Order: sequence, then C-alpha cells, then structure tokens
Amino acid sequence: VKTTDIGEFGLIERLAALLPKGAPPELVAGIGDDTAVWRVGERCLLATTDTMVEDEHFDELAEWPDVGWKILAVNLSDIAAMGGTPLFGLVTIGVRPKMRVEALDALYTGLAECAERYGVAIVGGDVVRARQVSVTVALLGEARMAGRRPLVLRRGGAKVGDAIAVTGTLGDSAGGLRQMQQGEAPDKRLRRRHYRPEPRLAEGQAAVRAGLRCAIDVSDGLLQDLGHVCEQSGVGAVVRWEDVPVSKELLAAYPRKAAEMALTGGEDYELVLVGRRAVLSRLPVTIIGETVEGSGVRVLDLDGAEVEFASPGWDALRL
Amino acid sequence: VKTTDIGEFGLIERLAALLPKGAPPELVAGIGDDTAVWRVGERCLLATTDTMVEDEHFDELAEWPDVGWKILAVNLSDIAAMGGTPLFGLVTIGVRPKMRVEALDALYTGLAECAERYGVAIVGGDVVRARQVSVTVALLGEARMAGRRPLVLRRGGAKVGDAIAVTGTLGDSAGGLRQMQQGEAPDKRLRRRHYRPEPRLAEGQAAVRAGLRCAIDVSDGLLQDLGHVCEQSGVGAVVRWEDVPVSKELLAAYPRKAAEMALTGGEDYELVLVGRRAVLSRLPVTIIGETVEGSGVRVLDLDGAEVEFASPGWDALRL
Repeated sequence: VKTTDIGEFGLIERLAALLPKGAPPELVAGIGDDTAVWRVGERCLLATTDTMVEDEHFDELAEWPDVGWKILAVNLSDIAAMGGTPLFGLVTIGVRPKMRVEALDALYTGLAECAERYGVAIVGGDVVRARQVSVTVALLGEARMAGRRPLVLRRGGAKVGDAIAVTGTLGDSAGGLRQMQQGEAPDKRLRRRHYRPEPRLAEGQAAVRAGLRCAIDVSDGLLQDLGHVCEQSGVGAVVRWEDVPVSKELLAAYPRKAAEMALTGGEDYELVLVGRRAVLSRLPVTIIGETVEGSGVRVLDLDGAEVEFASPGWDALRL
Repeated sequence: VKTTDIGEFGLIERLAALLPKGAPPELVAGIGDDTAVWRVGERCLLATTDTMVEDEHFDELAEWPDVGWKILAVNLSDIAAMGGTPLFGLVTIGVRPKMRVEALDALYTGLAECAERYGVAIVGGDVVRARQVSVTVALLGEARMAGRRPLVLRRGGAKVGDAIAVTGTLGDSAGGLRQMQQGEAPDKRLRRRHYRPEPRLAEGQAAVRAGLRCAIDVSDGLLQDLGHVCEQSGVGAVVRWEDVPVSKELLAAYPRKAAEMALTGGEDYELVLVGRRAVLSRLPVTIIGETVEGSGVRVLDLDGAEVEFASPGWDALRL
C-alpha cells in the first residue's frame, strides 16, 4: 500500500489504530480535533502541531519572514478553532547543509513578530540538518473553563438544523498564491492573506463566550474541513454557493474562479462556526448554510442545483 | 555566515536572541534546559521536542520499529533529565512520496510500544510529505511540586564542590553503532542500547526526591553535555577517566576505544547528576568527578594528566 493511495486522512486513521488502547482520564479530546484537550488540575490545555516543508508548503516565491510568521499563525489558528488562548510554543527547524544563517534569522524574525502579536512565548525546540528546510511548531494553549468543564469548539459539536457560518472572506489565499505562481504582480491584500494569515483567536473566544460548541478552521479547503465536522458530528451539510463571502479583490482577479477558490482553496485560516442561527446572527460572521440529516457536504447554486467539484481540498500525501 | 561555521549551539543562541524580550511570569525555564518549565495554576508543565531525520539520525541499518521507539525515548529522556513525569505527546511524520505505508506502520508500532511502556498518551500530530523520512515528537510532562515551587533538575543547578555522577554505563550506544557501520554482527546488548534506549525516568524522579537539583541527559556526548551544565552553572568540572562506567560488552568489543566512546560518543540517554556527594552516594549511580572553580570540563587519567579529545560530542550542523 502506498501513502498516495490512502492519503493523509487514511494514514492518520491507520496509524492512530496502532497506538495503545484506552484513553487516560486526563484526555478530553485527542487525534481528530483541531487540538488535543488535556486536563491539568482544574485547567485544560490545548495542544497542536503543524509543519511547513520547503517545496511542499512554500517555495522560492516565499520570503523567509513570511514562512516564520505563517507556521506560527497556522498553529494559532488551531487554538482559535477550539476557542482557546495560546500559551507557548516549541520550534523545530530543519536546516540545509551549509545554509546561510541570514535566511534562518529572517525566518525567525517573522516568527517572532507573530509571537509578539499574539502573545506566545517560544520556550524551546530543536535544530536538525536535512535536505529540505522545514519548520515545525508545537503549540500549547488553554481552554476557557466552566468549573471543571472546558468550553471548547469541537468538530463533533454540530446538530441537525444548525446554521453554518464563516468569519471573513474565503479564497483570498488561493487567489494570492495563484497570481504569484502565474508570475503576475499579486494583489497586495491577496498576497498578504496567503503569507500572513491572521488567526481568528478573538473570534473563536467570542464564539465560546456566546455559547457555541462547534468549529473548525479553514486550512485544507472549506468543503473538506466542513466535511470533517459532518463526519464527526454525524450530520450532513448544505452550503449555498452565493452566500459564501468572497472579497472584492478576489472577484476582481478571478471573477469566474472566485467561488471555487473560496470553497476548495484552503489556507484562509478563517473559522467555520456551527450552531444555533440566533446565536450566530449576533456574531460578525456570514451564514452560508445549515446542517441536515445524512452525511457529506452539498453545495447548491441559486437555482438549488448541486454544484460538483473535482476535489474538496488539499491532501498532504496525494499528488 | 554558514550554519556549519556557528554550529547547532551557536545557531540556537543567535535565533533565541531574535525572539520577543521579556519572559512571561508563567515561564520558569526556557530555551537551554532539557525541557521548558511552564506554570499552569498550581502545577508545572515540562515541554520538549526532538526530531530524527533519515540519513542524519538513522539510516538503512535501522529497523522502523526501532526508529519509532527511539524518537519517543529520547524525548522521554529530556523529561527524565528534569526529574519529571511524562504526560502526552504529539507526533509529526515526514513521509516520502509514494512511500510504503507498511514502513510507517512499523515505525508507529515501535513508538506505540514505547508509549505503552512509559505511560505516554499520543494525542495528535501532523503528516507532511518530504524527501527524507523524519519523525518529530513534542512531549509534555509534569514536575513534582513543593507547594507552588517545581522540584526540577536544572542545568544551572551545580555548585563548586559538587560530585558528578552518571547512571548506568556510557559508550554502549556508540559501540553498537560502530559495529553495525563496520558490517560486524553487533553485540546484542550494544545494538539494543543504540536503538532502544531506556529513558531514566525513575532515576530522575528518585534524584528529585533525594533532594538533587541538577542534571542533564547524555545525548550528544558526556563531555559536551556536562559542558552545558558547567556553562549554565558557572563552574568547571573534573572527570576521572578510570571512574567512568563502561560495560563489559563495550570493553570486549573496543578495548582501546571504550573510554573515548564513553566520554564523547553520545546517545546513551543516561543521566548526569550533580550534587552533594553524600546524597549521590545513596543513589544507584557512579561518581565520576566533581565540579571546581572556573569553566570547562577536564578529563584526568590515573596519573592526573589531562586527556584531550578531538571533539567533545555531536553537533547537528557541523560536518
């Protein structure tokens, strides 16, 4: 069996099945949510990790400070998707033999900027030599508590009849990347949305305070990420194509591709929030659909006809 | 400036200087100890991360289950070197394109065995595609507390006149590796010591209970690792060559190289404990020297003459 055959999510499921059985009492949420949730005394920690590898997640079009900012930001986005507050991180860098230190300085400058902006302490890490540059962050955060109960946004927290909403606009990151790859001068805002994503920490925390209990961040593509929510909640979802928020910059750059980029592009690091329509209506989000009986995500156009896509989003292992 | 010029420790110092200034009140120990120490309410967390990369930390001589065991074990060794108890880990794997899933199954089987043996929960991680296989563990643990004060073994905890001791025997890992690299049938115990290190968690915890406050684990080589203790404690160290414990298997395999392997070979994952001789004498350890005024580590032979070595140990970035 090849990794390309089973893909990222098939592999994770397969490897997780090899781990020791039986969850310790401290474990509230493990593999398969945006972060793990682990009790320490009266508090609950959140833990997540994400890696960026040269030529896979970024290439020579990227500036080193942007790579540093982004790897911390995407980890922060996982904390945001749980409605938590970040605490501290560990950073591992893979360094090419005889690489120029100035490039690593630049990477760290961007990472430090993001750490300062969101109040994260970098407390340790590792340095290894490798043929590709890579940077891994393991990030710890904390959940809001109600007594001994953590108040977090889980992927499995959706119920049939919930509304589905997103923060911000979708597709900008994919649009910015496409412009650069095609050698066009990218729109500044689209470029920034790709390289300097802003984790929705305040929005996730506000969602928890408002009483919401279900979210995911848009990392791989809305349809794929919302699919995880459906799977883990045991519901289906209907998304109305024309309600998905798209920026005027993306529409100007890709008038005919904008909707597809918004639904499948990924790397927007916006939050998908699922819950009661009355609650979502009071938050600065856009309602794009609702959960239904069944399974899977369907996208409907203005006439109510289903729109199909070649791929729901990104898979790290398929070609 | 090239990474090869400044080496692993020069690079870490340089990058750490780029991070935001000012430590948050929750941070007890940061970059430069075996683990970070972070307060959460009345408890203290320990956090560490280590990576193994194909062709750098293991090669085709290694079996996949051994790679999985070892990456978790070396992280556990950092928790042991603080005298702590492990809690949970995150695992990131770098996967070659179209790699056979069975190899990753095997890696995870060894990792799961180690997790079960030492009571660690694996609660999340990441999968990325890369040209070299790699596996990264970020591991969280907990410190023993005395009220609100964490009782941990710090690198900076040595005082002039302390005794220096080590657990177990040193050099076995280097000896086992050398045998395999030379194409000899390796001694079974030496091979196991290289591929299946056993983190000294119980020994570290016993050291804390006995009142010790300084340790490091032998990952890069005794002289180099003890050098970190000296630097951070502001002391020098004298090690008596003939007191360094060496196994009969290593002596049989490398009678003339055993002492050098023991002092500079690394990857033994034994603990170096530094403290009052009276306390160390009651523990199952071997006293090998003492701390002195000054700086640096000196090794003395039976006649009191200083023994010099080409390198004190491993540096991830130098050739």
